[in-house]
Amino acid sequence: MSNDPRLFIDAPLGNGQAVPLSREDSHYLINVMRRDEGDPVRLFNGRDGEWQATVAKAHKKNAVLACETQNRPQAAVPDLWLMFAPVKRQKNELIVEKATELGVADIRPVITTRTQSERMRLDRFEIIAKEAAEQTERLDLPVIHEAVKLDQMLEDWDENRVIIYCDEAGDDGARPWGGDTGRASQALGPLTEMRGKPAALLIGPEGGFTPEERDRLRSLDFVHAVSLGPRILRAETAVISALTLWQSVCGDWG
Amino acid sequence: MSNDPRLFIDAPLGNGQAVPLSREDSHYLINVMRRDEGDPVRLFNGRDGEWQATVAKAHKKNAVLACETQNRPQAAVPDLWLMFAPVKRQKNELIVEKATELGVADIRPVITTRTQSERMRLDRFEIIAKEAAEQTERLDLPVIHEAVKLDQMLEDWDENRVIIYCDEAGDDGARPWGGDTGRASQALGPLTEMRGKPAALLIGPEGGFTPEERDRLRSLDFVHAVSLGPRILRAETAVISALTLWQSVCGDWG
Repeated sequence: MSNDPRLFIDAPLGNGQAVPLSREDSHYLINVMRRDEGDPVRLFNGRDGEWQATVAKAHKKNAVLACETQNRPQAAVPDLWLMFAPVKRQKNELIVEKATELGVADIRPVITTRTQSERMRLDRFEIIAKEAAEQTERLDLPVIHEAVKLDQMLEDWDENRVIIYCDEAGDDGARPWGGDTGRASQALGPLTEMRGKPAALLIGPEGGFTPEERDRLRSLDFVHAVSLGPRILRAETAVISALTLWQSVCGDWG
Repeated sequence: MSNDPRLFIDAPLGNGQAVPLSREDSHYLINVMRRDEGDPVRLFNGRDGEWQATVAKAHKKNAVLACETQNRPQAAVPDLWLMFAPVKRQKNELIVEKATELGVADIRPVITTRTQSERMRLDRFEIIAKEAAEQTERLDLPVIHEAVKLDQMLEDWDENRVIIYCDEAGDDGARPWGGDTGRASQALGPLTEMRGKPAALLIGPEGGFTPEERDRLRSLDFVHAVSLGPRILRAETAVISALTLWQSVCGDWG
């Protein structure tokens, strides 16, 4: 695996193409990474695969790269969305970073009754997703959406996409030691039946879904519950665990 | 599930037992959580299960609780160790927190050739593990060990415990698009053969294991490689993903 710096660029990539960098990318490459003219860099734009390039102009504010050969053709991540109820800022950002690493195509914040924070800076999410994609070797960025209300989202839902929901902070006593009132009993089994289907993982807020929300989710044919074990996971852990399980059973970890 | 505050206490718990709190726990319970005399609290000590208690003396520095009834008998997490090459402080702490949430029994930092940071504050790790255990409803704390060198660890190894290693940052080109030179091809398959065996997950440093380390690991019968997919995960993500997979295949998520 190459250790050359890797940048996402929103510009065409191709043989001989000159690629001017933004001020931020120029600063990163020339000042932080200390690259000079002739040094190798890798580029991707979400459309044209990954390209090998070299620094043509090592300017600290307006560097220019020269695109040379394609390393890999474009490839998509699996058709998986992440829908999560926003938590605190730092944790939201961790969720966006990890979802990008774990190969999510679409990130959709969802406002539930108990969601504590609705203020999100989508521009920060975009920067975090770009950096995570650069580091994780994926060839595209996840699409990041504005937050929507859970009810609205369910009303507009295309039923061809299954929703897999994890209700970590459920207050219905549905823990192994508290009786079982409908909580999914295991993680892997239910997922094997969802292979080959577009999917969306839904992670509830720290306070859990309300009983009404849970009833509504359970009443819908395209919604399936998955268990994340007997301990209670924080929201960001639940996101990473659920994405891991989906990728290994239904995604591209096979 | 109860929303009563939950504290780990290193003291005997039993019917009618008075439990004096440390200064830190007193501050947390009385000042931060604003509990008063008579308010319910849950306690665990890693030996006597979880107990329901009430605040007997709401002192801000020296609170005392009265233990009443046992909520749950003592139960252990699965016999799983986490061995990880330390990374940056914040990420090490995230690793300890998540390993605790995900039900690891033992946490062992391992120094490899490319480990960048060997300075760790085990006292900080202890505090983080305590808080995570309190929140995650487990009944014990993970045991946190001093760092050991990878070579020494392998020499002293009890071969009854399998080592499952994830080499995310491998530099041997062992990625789907870079040819395969021995990298595990999938995650779940190899794990199913390790059910019922004590296990230790080994996560390499950000720079990956060296070729020599990798050769040594591969030469040992009790060491098995597991893939965490085609994208490259940061160390802390690899920890969470690997723990998730082990818990769902071999642990108590079934």
